[in-house]
Amino acid sequence: MRIALLAAAAATLVSANTAFATDLAAAAVAIRDRALADTTAWDVTESLTTEVGARPQGSPAMDRARDWGVAKLKALGFENVHVETFETESWLRGAESAEVVAPFPQKLQILGLGRSAATPAGGLEAEIALFRSYDELLAQPPGALKGKIAVVTEPMRRTQDIRGYAGAVRARSGGVEAAKRGAVAYLVRSISTDDTRLPHGGGAAMSGIPMAALSPPDAELLERMVARGKPVRIKLAMASTYRAKAPAYNVVGEIRGREKPEEVIVIGGHLDSWDAGTGAVDDAAGIGVTTAAAKLISDLPQRPRRTVRVVMWGAEEQGGSGGAYAEANKAEVPNMIVAGESDLGAGEIFNAKLPAGSLDHPAMKAFAAAVNPLRVIISRDPAQDGGADVAGLKRLGTPVVELQQDAGRYFDLHHSADDTLDKVDPKELAQNVAVWAAFVYTVADSDIDFRKTASVSQ
Amino acid sequence: MRIALLAAAAATLVSANTAFATDLAAAAVAIRDRALADTTAWDVTESLTTEVGARPQGSPAMDRARDWGVAKLKALGFENVHVETFETESWLRGAESAEVVAPFPQKLQILGLGRSAATPAGGLEAEIALFRSYDELLAQPPGALKGKIAVVTEPMRRTQDIRGYAGAVRARSGGVEAAKRGAVAYLVRSISTDDTRLPHGGGAAMSGIPMAALSPPDAELLERMVARGKPVRIKLAMASTYRAKAPAYNVVGEIRGREKPEEVIVIGGHLDSWDAGTGAVDDAAGIGVTTAAAKLISDLPQRPRRTVRVVMWGAEEQGGSGGAYAEANKAEVPNMIVAGESDLGAGEIFNAKLPAGSLDHPAMKAFAAAVNPLRVIISRDPAQDGGADVAGLKRLGTPVVELQQDAGRYFDLHHSADDTLDKVDPKELAQNVAVWAAFVYTVADSDIDFRKTASVSQ
Repeated sequence: MRIALLAAAAATLVSANTAFATDLAAAAVAIRDRALADTTAWDVTESLTTEVGARPQGSPAMDRARDWGVAKLKALGFENVHVETFETESWLRGAESAEVVAPFPQKLQILGLGRSAATPAGGLEAEIALFRSYDELLAQPPGALKGKIAVVTEPMRRTQDIRGYAGAVRARSGGVEAAKRGAVAYLVRSISTDDTRLPHGGGAAMSGIPMAALSPPDAELLERMVARGKPVRIKLAMASTYRAKAPAYNVVGEIRGREKPEEVIVIGGHLDSWDAGTGAVDDAAGIGVTTAAAKLISDLPQRPRRTVRVVMWGAEEQGGSGGAYAEANKAEVPNMIVAGESDLGAGEIFNAKLPAGSLDHPAMKAFAAAVNPLRVIISRDPAQDGGADVAGLKRLGTPVVELQQDAGRYFDLHHSADDTLDKVDPKELAQNVAVWAAFVYTVADSDIDFRKTASVSQ
Repeated sequence: MRIALLAAAAATLVSANTAFATDLAAAAVAIRDRALADTTAWDVTESLTTEVGARPQGSPAMDRARDWGVAKLKALGFENVHVETFETESWLRGAESAEVVAPFPQKLQILGLGRSAATPAGGLEAEIALFRSYDELLAQPPGALKGKIAVVTEPMRRTQDIRGYAGAVRARSGGVEAAKRGAVAYLVRSISTDDTRLPHGGGAAMSGIPMAALSPPDAELLERMVARGKPVRIKLAMASTYRAKAPAYNVVGEIRGREKPEEVIVIGGHLDSWDAGTGAVDDAAGIGVTTAAAKLISDLPQRPRRTVRVVMWGAEEQGGSGGAYAEANKAEVPNMIVAGESDLGAGEIFNAKLPAGSLDHPAMKAFAAAVNPLRVIISRDPAQDGGADVAGLKRLGTPVVELQQDAGRYFDLHHSADDTLDKVDPKELAQNVAVWAAFVYTVADSDIDFRKTASVSQ
């Protein structure tokens, strides 16, 4: 009886998988619990923010961060610790100031955007053209902004995931569209959910004109001034240095696998940061979490079958570290089992997007069983690009994972001076480590092949 | 029967008082409800923060604030609008910067304190001596801080009232004690409950050395650096200008009483502000609330018996406006019925401290009945000094009132760049107006004499 035979065969398969998964599940639970009690992620995050602080790509601080990364990985017992050098852009801030000169003189709190042009040495002064939605600016005809400082004050919606940011962030690069229409400078309300006077910066598309973020209260102040009907004039002075190619560094360390060391799980965060804060939630936390997860695995009585590699990507903010890493390591891609980046703050992981088709694999069942008690949802949707620094590997064929953090508070801090260690909750950080450690361990000590699960699912 | 006669006499008294208080109580309730629906306080607060913004004593912005105050009072229909000029200190900020130069170079966020000395033009650099409690600094022997930058990082407790601030604020003037012990500069953790990277300034006793507030995250960063055991060196550069006597202005307007215009109720807020924010909660809100309360009374079909006077004190932050006002108006003190200042933010009034012995007076019963539904506690404790700008009047014999605001959030904002309009809740502001209007009206349209109630109570 064909059906009976198939059922028997299936029972045998399930039984073998169950036995396998039981061991793996127990190990995942054990490493999860060690992670919850471990302080390595906090210690690493504290160390990077205290001993290095802000570390924009191309700055002397980034050189210190690179040296810090090498020393930290060695001190934690990682193997094959090395630096992969590449070149990418570097935009570094100089002195900046802005003020309303008429009709109501007031100082403004701004933060220049990455790739902004400088103003003339004495600054520039012009009347503003203010738009409460970015689409209003886009609706302006050619020449409509001639000689004006274009200002966009569209606010961002707070969401638990990236959607609020994704919906608002296009306005940060609005300098390009403003310049096309004749604007001499571009000011944009911080892409942020915060209400403090600290502006939030970040990278923007190069427009050839000065570009800066306004703090949310300053954006609202300008709205109120404009509502009074008189022309509002702003004086803006911004200095910066830009290099199209500056040395940059990916710092790498490994926990070598015991059976198949050539098969590699790549995880990490980014080592660089913007300059206003100390790069705590963006992204010392990601460095801390992924380094701690690998370290916990290395502390086990025996190494996992496969190699766990931690990469501290060196130029996420200004771009290039993920692409450079993929390019430099493309020959190894067929042996890269999965790649993932932690780069959405330090809030708890609430949703796990696994590689396509892998949900029912015993290794992923073991992972899910370990992290469901930590209130992690196992998403039915597969991971997409995995994050800026692994998207390049994904394009070359590497499966990716997305362990999504609760970002409800992240955009209060992101890219601002307020990105400091005190905003990191050690308990939430440990939850991240537990989820990463459980995931990485169940992949590293199994034979799961996400390329096969993906093909089965299609 | 003596007892029956007394009871009858008491009944007559109560009856007369009840009739009187019933009218007054109904009027107080009516003006309370108009206040809750009125936007004048918001409009005034919005106008001052938008059209003037930061207005430190002795600055050109303070001149604009003075002119704004005169114009606003006239536009709202106040009488006898005038400016009382006096002289007091003026400390104005110049360029400021601070950075750790060793062992971990990082920029610090500071805000110079009022009366701070400037550094030499090129700045000064020294090792720090860090104390986690102010008492630790006080315990240092003479000479112990020679050549050092003294740093105090004691944090402030959040309380609903002024207690947290009162307990912590002495450290802001610690420069005096640091200088006595040989320190070359003084840095203090912001006297604040905030956790943002915005430092909170304020006035400090003159010490002869540079003095600045650190943002809370920066104070904690220094604590972590010091914990690593290596000497921490800071470079500090601060410029400022100080005048012991600079022109200053109290702006005054009145609603003249219909029966006893010479009897005056003095209320107000302070017109000056620190320079980092826009002086919204400190103290445009107080100006808005008291101006609106008086305006609502002036809108009644008939004027109250007594005069209601609004004073916009011009130098609360740097000191002197209350003393100058009392000195200039001391001949009038016997006719000043009561004085009160609104200067603890824009949170709801939760506790009313009345002049001593007045709780049982029908006018105050009418007030209490009007504001109890707004969750105002009528305190058994009498008002003390009434606030910085009325303490001088109090010393000359004027009764004072304290309508205490919930300050739970105030010290997140106070004296920082974050003191902006968006932090003011229009509904909470209207509650303040309702309480002030009810109080002022019940005093202005009655014959309550707080000097007599005080003598009865003693």
